[in-house]
Amino acid sequence: MLLKNGLILYGESYEWVRADLLIEGNKIVKIGRNLHADSDIVIDCSHSLIVPGFINSHTHSPMVLLRGLAEDVPLMEWLEKYIWPNERKLGKKEVYWGALLGLIEMARAGTTTFIDMYFHMEEVAKATLEVGLRGFLGYGMIDLDDERKRRIEIRETEKFRKFIIQQNSELLNFILAPHAPYTCSMECLKWVATKSREWNALVTIHLSETKSEVALIKEKYGKTPTEVLDDAGLLNEKLIAAHGIWLDDKEIYLLGKNGSTIVHCPASNMKLGSGIINLRKLLDNGVNVGLGTDGAASNNTLDMLQEMRLASLLQKVVNLDPSIIKSSEIFRMATLNGAKALKLNAGIIKEGYLADIAVINLKRPNLLPMNNPLSSLVFSAKGGDVETLIVNGSIVMLDGEFQTVDEDKVLDKFLGVL
Amino acid sequence: MLLKNGLILYGESYEWVRADLLIEGNKIVKIGRNLHADSDIVIDCSHSLIVPGFINSHTHSPMVLLRGLAEDVPLMEWLEKYIWPNERKLGKKEVYWGALLGLIEMARAGTTTFIDMYFHMEEVAKATLEVGLRGFLGYGMIDLDDERKRRIEIRETEKFRKFIIQQNSELLNFILAPHAPYTCSMECLKWVATKSREWNALVTIHLSETKSEVALIKEKYGKTPTEVLDDAGLLNEKLIAAHGIWLDDKEIYLLGKNGSTIVHCPASNMKLGSGIINLRKLLDNGVNVGLGTDGAASNNTLDMLQEMRLASLLQKVVNLDPSIIKSSEIFRMATLNGAKALKLNAGIIKEGYLADIAVINLKRPNLLPMNNPLSSLVFSAKGGDVETLIVNGSIVMLDGEFQTVDEDKVLDKFLGVL
Repeated sequence: MLLKNGLILYGESYEWVRADLLIEGNKIVKIGRNLHADSDIVIDCSHSLIVPGFINSHTHSPMVLLRGLAEDVPLMEWLEKYIWPNERKLGKKEVYWGALLGLIEMARAGTTTFIDMYFHMEEVAKATLEVGLRGFLGYGMIDLDDERKRRIEIRETEKFRKFIIQQNSELLNFILAPHAPYTCSMECLKWVATKSREWNALVTIHLSETKSEVALIKEKYGKTPTEVLDDAGLLNEKLIAAHGIWLDDKEIYLLGKNGSTIVHCPASNMKLGSGIINLRKLLDNGVNVGLGTDGAASNNTLDMLQEMRLASLLQKVVNLDPSIIKSSEIFRMATLNGAKALKLNAGIIKEGYLADIAVINLKRPNLLPMNNPLSSLVFSAKGGDVETLIVNGSIVMLDGEFQTVDEDKVLDKFLGVL
Repeated sequence: MLLKNGLILYGESYEWVRADLLIEGNKIVKIGRNLHADSDIVIDCSHSLIVPGFINSHTHSPMVLLRGLAEDVPLMEWLEKYIWPNERKLGKKEVYWGALLGLIEMARAGTTTFIDMYFHMEEVAKATLEVGLRGFLGYGMIDLDDERKRRIEIRETEKFRKFIIQQNSELLNFILAPHAPYTCSMECLKWVATKSREWNALVTIHLSETKSEVALIKEKYGKTPTEVLDDAGLLNEKLIAAHGIWLDDKEIYLLGKNGSTIVHCPASNMKLGSGIINLRKLLDNGVNVGLGTDGAASNNTLDMLQEMRLASLLQKVVNLDPSIIKSSEIFRMATLNGAKALKLNAGIIKEGYLADIAVINLKRPNLLPMNNPLSSLVFSAKGGDVETLIVNGSIVMLDGEFQTVDEDKVLDKFLGVL
């Protein structure tokens, strides 16, 4: 496959190069002027930016089903009164259709890879194959210190891992997903740590999202949530922890030292009034920070382009300092830092890297004139500006048309309910 | 014109009604089930929301030309080092094309009416007629206490007012536009107040955007900026002041008592690190608060849908209280409050009101399922989800295609520069 004459965001230094890009198999093999390859597919990119696809490092894709369901209430009330009761009603079929819709929304905003924690995850896996994105999928474990519940969660996790192995797809990856230190027992967390080593599996978890959950943990353990994860044996480079809002200096130091990842979810943190991450301090302490949309019930989109904008704007205004964070840092969070967390050879456009690519059409009133392409991506682009999406060397969307899933069928399914 | 079978956001109480909507001339004349009118144009809205068009109460549309030009620098440096030097290079032709591009972007995100303050405003007026939006246009006066400059600014303002009167269009409205208390002399502000009475003209101005400009004013006058406007005779129901971030309690009280309008511009305030408005206090003190995008150089879009989302999210997180502001309040800021500021019989969908209408297509992955239409509008919708736009009873955009301006020509003009 040959992408002709695009403006390419090249390598780790983010140099803009006008060139052709050749894909063979699932890899970017060559970038240069006037490449003449015997390609089956040639895509004209002369009015487009070619950038690495986004890595949505924290989401619950089927939660699009609950989009807009509960508004203007705090996290705990939101979870206990609205989200959890409604989630109990969701069967396999609902989760499947929800995941399809969520993945379509993600693809339209340039996401090629995502980390998902939910239940009925076999259905999310099916949707992932159908849309053609790269998923890191985990069954969300919640045992609430109940041994019987814990056995069920462990069984579900083992069962789901087997399912993923059986699928034998490059797009499907298993991830361990204990929900949070305040919803999982120490025994559960330790089991996860053991299996993470045994299976060489990544671990995703919620960490320090609200002030009140941190107080809860301190009361129970006399320690911070990060120290609890350390005790459980989870504080290492396999840990991908979402939110990280109320971390103290020692926790930030520990996360940085151990090579762990924090996934910033600005829209969700703002919507639920959870708090504001200290992004500068995290980055300055060497913590790998990714970016995530969280679920659509608290966002209410799955749009990584808008998420980048929010992440930047929030830091600037809270610090009363527009120079506190650079667009390149934000863009890296949404791409390369996610790839680092996932040990994925992706996140930049360079020879030898995975062909996970978003092509963004500049013929849009919100993207012109293009004085600064990186700034356009972070501050002006949005879902819908992506015209072509390539995942693992295969075309998911071409000129705005899905080549994999039947988008019309999915949208009509949800329109029909109106 | 008949809009068939849409989901209509009806009246001031925001009730959702599935009905037909009949437009005659520039007014909404009838709303009801199964209307059988002898209409020239019938638009199927069965998969759409019908809502009042947005009123962008503060922008500088030609500043799309400077989109992304200067990033990550504070307001004063941004103005003095990047924006003003580049603006000096802008001729009539540039302003005309910039305004066209800006208005196209606004229309695509559902804006029907906007307040614009800039220079070469005749060109902005031409673009406004060409795209078919409703503009309140003002020549931005800056005299910097220089009498010679003041005479020029007064002459320009008088000349532009004559031009608008000559155009004799319902879409074009003159507005007085002194730039700010820190860039205009007391004499200039007093002249504006006198002419506002004489011409019965609205006044728009920047007010209390940065901490430093407030300090400047206090040093010069020994008063707050709002008291300075009061002294000049400008503090009344004709005043539309952008930003209002650093207002003290007395200023907020004065603005509320005198029926003035504050235009909140969250994206710009965040991007430039200017500060965070106390929205709850303003609303609770009876201040009429509108919503604006500001110019694209500090936003970097002109998308009122995204602006609503930002306005809500910012208040929730800064107050650590997701219930601090309701979606209906945010939506009202973007519509009815703007209309109130402009003394315009618009901003809601109701019989007798101006037919300034945005039709939003729900067949979008980011808008489904539709558990809550108002929440979808505030938190999930974005530019591009608007399929049809009606201004003053005329179709500007139909099914995503402009019926007025040649969008392709405008976009190609800016693409050509790449």
